[in-house]
Amino acid sequence: MDLAPSPLAAPFPDMPAISGVTLRVARARYKDWDRADLTYVELAEGTAIAGVFTRNVCCSTEVELGRESVKHGRGRAIVVNAGNSNAFTGYRGREAVEQVSHQIAAHLGCPASEVLVSSTGVIGVPLPKDRAKAGVEQALTASPCSWREAAETIGTTDTFTKGAHASAMLGGTRVEVCGIIKGSGMIAPDMATMLGYIFTDAKVTPDFLQQMLDRANAASFSCITVDGDTSTSDTVLLAATGLADNPLIASWDDPGADALYAAIADVCQRLAHLVVRDGEGAQKFIEIAVTGAKSDDSARRVGLSIANSPLVKTAIAGEDANWGRVVMAVGKAGEPADRDRLSIGFGGIWTARDGQPVADYDEAPVAEHLKGQDIRMDVDLGIGDGRATVWTCDLTHGYIAINADYRS
Amino acid sequence: MDLAPSPLAAPFPDMPAISGVTLRVARARYKDWDRADLTYVELAEGTAIAGVFTRNVCCSTEVELGRESVKHGRGRAIVVNAGNSNAFTGYRGREAVEQVSHQIAAHLGCPASEVLVSSTGVIGVPLPKDRAKAGVEQALTASPCSWREAAETIGTTDTFTKGAHASAMLGGTRVEVCGIIKGSGMIAPDMATMLGYIFTDAKVTPDFLQQMLDRANAASFSCITVDGDTSTSDTVLLAATGLADNPLIASWDDPGADALYAAIADVCQRLAHLVVRDGEGAQKFIEIAVTGAKSDDSARRVGLSIANSPLVKTAIAGEDANWGRVVMAVGKAGEPADRDRLSIGFGGIWTARDGQPVADYDEAPVAEHLKGQDIRMDVDLGIGDGRATVWTCDLTHGYIAINADYRS
Repeated sequence: MDLAPSPLAAPFPDMPAISGVTLRVARARYKDWDRADLTYVELAEGTAIAGVFTRNVCCSTEVELGRESVKHGRGRAIVVNAGNSNAFTGYRGREAVEQVSHQIAAHLGCPASEVLVSSTGVIGVPLPKDRAKAGVEQALTASPCSWREAAETIGTTDTFTKGAHASAMLGGTRVEVCGIIKGSGMIAPDMATMLGYIFTDAKVTPDFLQQMLDRANAASFSCITVDGDTSTSDTVLLAATGLADNPLIASWDDPGADALYAAIADVCQRLAHLVVRDGEGAQKFIEIAVTGAKSDDSARRVGLSIANSPLVKTAIAGEDANWGRVVMAVGKAGEPADRDRLSIGFGGIWTARDGQPVADYDEAPVAEHLKGQDIRMDVDLGIGDGRATVWTCDLTHGYIAINADYRS
Repeated sequence: MDLAPSPLAAPFPDMPAISGVTLRVARARYKDWDRADLTYVELAEGTAIAGVFTRNVCCSTEVELGRESVKHGRGRAIVVNAGNSNAFTGYRGREAVEQVSHQIAAHLGCPASEVLVSSTGVIGVPLPKDRAKAGVEQALTASPCSWREAAETIGTTDTFTKGAHASAMLGGTRVEVCGIIKGSGMIAPDMATMLGYIFTDAKVTPDFLQQMLDRANAASFSCITVDGDTSTSDTVLLAATGLADNPLIASWDDPGADALYAAIADVCQRLAHLVVRDGEGAQKFIEIAVTGAKSDDSARRVGLSIANSPLVKTAIAGEDANWGRVVMAVGKAGEPADRDRLSIGFGGIWTARDGQPVADYDEAPVAEHLKGQDIRMDVDLGIGDGRATVWTCDLTHGYIAINADYRS
């Protein structure tokens, strides 16, 4: 089905080319559709690569192989198949992935492990080898394309095209960070896997690139939820071509490390927000700031318990400052909390403090805030210094319509 | 709002009186409504009592006091307030509960700890002491009422009245087990707390009564979910008056222990199913049988991960045998599982085996099964002997309508 763009959609930004990154797309016809569905990203020799992957224990072959590849730290190419996730296809699915990586490795003259493959779309059907082969051949000789075309091509059930850009000055050298992402929750028959690809021309060691991605991921992709469900193929890759003139960055102490990290973290957070903004049926973007927890990790778990609560999400859809449901969600997280120290606010106004409703809070601005598209919730546990911010969307009739009314 | 009865509603059964249990109801007018809203259960002297309570760390005063009471193992009275949950009301809420228990303790001449109080309804408003006092006075002198009247009086947002009965022969003595329950998920402005009360005339020690309730609870109330959210007040109490002529049962080895447990477990499971059958917006009752897990506990966690997945619940609402979403939910549970050994079936027919779709399964009976009201899902992890069965309902537009379209 074709869905109208999310009311929370953001325009695709202007994004500069990145030295050492060449984008191409092709029509492998993984489905019977008239669109490009194979994305091929060629990376300069010596490109460092890092990755984070789904924690779903029933992960796809692509994720298993991707985890191995990033251990080596070098990548020459990324391929993204859209329309077929190749998940739950056993050895035949694995053969198809290996065929793709070997085909490209032969072309580039690199080890197959330096070709990273992702797939998203229908599950249970092995990626058709013949179509993949012809698609890759087509891609290898295609003209380079724009960020927007690549971002459109990795998309499946997305209602808008998603990209983000930031730059950083490392000493006198300007470096760019560009990212594209797809994902909007998980939609039948496609599990709308989150696949994100971030590129920079900065010169960074693979180990430190992975450290930066791990840290940025913890504050972005690990802090968003649409429905609490986790795709079996979720993948975010970060590639650094090293063609910029900055001195090699190998640790947090090196000059420029903080500036580069800030740009990467910024792009990760923007991309993460775009996925939430395309949440199925989303009418409101919700930011939940948890403070006063025992630890940052604990704050994040409390935040995600709130963000995943159907009762909280429907309350926001109903524009209802229902702090009782928030208390419930805090309590069910199983993290340290004290009912009588808990404070909850909407749009910057506390509606409950120390476990009791604020009798005389000003309801008008709270009601006005909840009518908006961007909702802010503050939850102070009052027992420590741990803090985290998580993001989600509301739960509406649109979610049910997308996931129940249409058949796979 | 008044909701139409759930399409999954079951009729209230015939239930015999239980010797030593007297039911009375009164109108405390906790809300501006024309109905009984205070239930008073008087129990014979020497009645043993056991209880299980919500694990929500932000639990209510009633739950805190109830936990203390059941440690002593004796109960003379149960009071249930409907219309005001007294949750998140600080010291004033606690005073109101203590007033109720002292008032009844004075009347019965028993310790206040032997009076167990539950409350359900609006949160954040202390239980009004004057109304509670007048309500209790009225109840103490009211005529005894039926199981159905008591079950109706503990209800709040329930769309039908819920009770279950079983009996057991302990040697030559017939004993009865009767239970009533309320709860239908959690609905604003009331958190539709699950409150269950089960009574038997069997002679049992308090310690063993608690052991039986713990075991029965693990296979019933702990295996159901409507939306994964957990009320701050959930409570199930089990009272044994001991007025039957059976020899005292104090352990699993005593004659009659197994028969009595079977009756109690049966009532617990029926009551648990009734709560699911009144799940908000429920159109289908779903039984998920997990086998082949590493352990029974692991099987239960996998089952609940499936039962709580919005994508699985919407797939069932859409009558879609979407085994891919089930695989996803198994994987995100974080329990031991092997993608390539996983088998999934609907209505007794395997649609995926060993991590791959069954190419030639007979779709017609599966489609027919999914059109029905009672859905059976089989999930075999293929790695061990652990098993568990959990129950849930589908996720429909009705859930959103109840929780988002109406304001608290």
